[in-house]
Amino acid sequence: MQNPKKNNIDRFFAIIPAGGSGSRLWPLSRAAAPKFLHDLTGSGQTLLQDTWDRLQPLAKARTMVVTGDIHARAVEEQLPELDLSNIILEPTPRDSTAAIGLAAAILMLREPDVIIGSFAADHVILDENKFQEAVLEAVEVAATGLIVTIGLVPTEASVAFGYIQQGEPLDSKSARSVKKFVEKPNIKLAQEYVDSGDYFWNAGMFIAPAKLLLEVLAQTEPELHAGVMKIALAWDSKDRDQVMSATWLKLKKIAIDYAIAEPAALQNLVAVVPAEFEWHDVGDFASIAELQSQGRKGNLAVIGSAKVLSDSSSGILVSYTNRLVALIGLEDVIVVDTPDALLVTNKANAQKVKSLVEALRQSGHSELL
Amino acid sequence: MQNPKKNNIDRFFAIIPAGGSGSRLWPLSRAAAPKFLHDLTGSGQTLLQDTWDRLQPLAKARTMVVTGDIHARAVEEQLPELDLSNIILEPTPRDSTAAIGLAAAILMLREPDVIIGSFAADHVILDENKFQEAVLEAVEVAATGLIVTIGLVPTEASVAFGYIQQGEPLDSKSARSVKKFVEKPNIKLAQEYVDSGDYFWNAGMFIAPAKLLLEVLAQTEPELHAGVMKIALAWDSKDRDQVMSATWLKLKKIAIDYAIAEPAALQNLVAVVPAEFEWHDVGDFASIAELQSQGRKGNLAVIGSAKVLSDSSSGILVSYTNRLVALIGLEDVIVVDTPDALLVTNKANAQKVKSLVEALRQSGHSELL
Repeated sequence: MQNPKKNNIDRFFAIIPAGGSGSRLWPLSRAAAPKFLHDLTGSGQTLLQDTWDRLQPLAKARTMVVTGDIHARAVEEQLPELDLSNIILEPTPRDSTAAIGLAAAILMLREPDVIIGSFAADHVILDENKFQEAVLEAVEVAATGLIVTIGLVPTEASVAFGYIQQGEPLDSKSARSVKKFVEKPNIKLAQEYVDSGDYFWNAGMFIAPAKLLLEVLAQTEPELHAGVMKIALAWDSKDRDQVMSATWLKLKKIAIDYAIAEPAALQNLVAVVPAEFEWHDVGDFASIAELQSQGRKGNLAVIGSAKVLSDSSSGILVSYTNRLVALIGLEDVIVVDTPDALLVTNKANAQKVKSLVEALRQSGHSELL
Repeated sequence: MQNPKKNNIDRFFAIIPAGGSGSRLWPLSRAAAPKFLHDLTGSGQTLLQDTWDRLQPLAKARTMVVTGDIHARAVEEQLPELDLSNIILEPTPRDSTAAIGLAAAILMLREPDVIIGSFAADHVILDENKFQEAVLEAVEVAATGLIVTIGLVPTEASVAFGYIQQGEPLDSKSARSVKKFVEKPNIKLAQEYVDSGDYFWNAGMFIAPAKLLLEVLAQTEPELHAGVMKIALAWDSKDRDQVMSATWLKLKKIAIDYAIAEPAALQNLVAVVPAEFEWHDVGDFASIAELQSQGRKGNLAVIGSAKVLSDSSSGILVSYTNRLVALIGLEDVIVVDTPDALLVTNKANAQKVKSLVEALRQSGHSELL
């Protein structure tokens, strides 16, 4: 009996880094319950659950979650299918390279030819078929020995995202090599990027053979590489907790863009698969309101369990208190109603929520953060 | 030993009709807790308590309260000095003539030469000395055999109040006879009234010998007069409850303006004492905000126990939920935060709260009214 050749997609293992506090989404998002644990789209599921579901057709149970240890219980409750051997609990956040690097190292030791893909737990993606199609192509390209990122075809000159400059076409349906990654531009530069047709939004999704990813890391950040390897080697043994607690806090805090993606691009090791699915990095309530209303003017988006009585108001209401909420004649209002804190503002001021949270921190209201 | 002549002020007995639901102040004001039971001025006392205190220098314990029987407990708690023989509990509201008429009848039977004065429980009066001075003069004028009303010197052409047209001067410091009462005018008419100098705002305050008031009522509404007399005769006896419940619901619902003040004015039986104290009929949250901010622009008025974090917001916040309330960049906002209902609107829409309450009633949310 012939041993059938393994398909590349069978080598795929998804990693979901579930971190970040989302302070611009206070008081809904808290340190103890960051945005990925909430239903911000009205889908009936949290962003984390949406992310999990979106990956299931590709990865099935082969999905690992990296999150803060204070979120362990919430994550396990929200993802009952998550195998407990596939959850990494961080004692404190050490940025994305440590998180994804450790996951990649653990998975590589279990399965040397594994192709990992990293997808943040708090993104909103509306066309799952197009997403899956892009990841499928990315896995094939990654199997040729490249780190592959998914680049969103820009629909406007946004200054909120970093951009990816494409290089030559590759021997694949739509993938191109990546010339370089660029930081969030100013509006003029963003317009030039979009007009050129050569740039994509960097959505922070990486698909790569774990082995390759770690090789690059070994070159760029040898100490960090040694650290994650040390933890990974102890991971599936009785020494896990001891090595983790002795090593984790010493790992360098650095974003994966700087530690791996950008240096790898300079070595021609990165490809981009262009994609056109609708993607949102729901950063503040204004963006959630927009997402919910789908561009329709004058709509009031409602998230949560509130009984709502609205007389010609638009904007967004988030309420989980079961109270009646009555809104009269307010344009682009933002009302976030939680048991211990109430926020009222409007879309124009949505970004200021972050400094308000900072003010709360400084005035000693940590119980509300 | 000579029996010293009784001063007119010693004949004075205050009546406080404490009724009305104040639906434009929902969700703070409810059927079960109307506006007079709330502190709307930030004085630290409710409107009812403020009304009581304002009358004490004149009436002392000689004060009677007429209120709905569901408010009995709240009124007794708020007014510990109120003698229980001086509280009339209405099984249902029957408008102001029944309320004030019954109080006047009970007091007249106890004390035939009593001069009663009626003062609504939900008005705000800022200069108590001027108020007391006006009432003192009104009592003297009433003692000459007149029904006396206190007329506010208008400070603008308001269309929110009825007006009182003055007639000839009387033999008193500032009192005049009243030519007639006129309904709330349109703005053009209001301006003419104000420009003429002949008109005052009708604040609904009446001071009169109880006997005279009831004589007028006997002429204009003989059945209603007979009804209140029947109850009054049984009031201080064991038959009170039986007669009250058999008679009260049959009393005609009519405002005292129509049943007594206007017809009495046509008989030259009414005088007006002009007054210039600051008087507010706090009808909606916009007027409370104005009252609180004393005309200063850009202020946020706060009523209640909320912890507030405001970034350049103006308007009014009413909160009794002990939550943190954060407001960012909102102009003339109205936020009313109660345990089972939250209202968010702005000053321009403050009057619409009434129709919202109507919508709640029609949609069967009576538990929130």
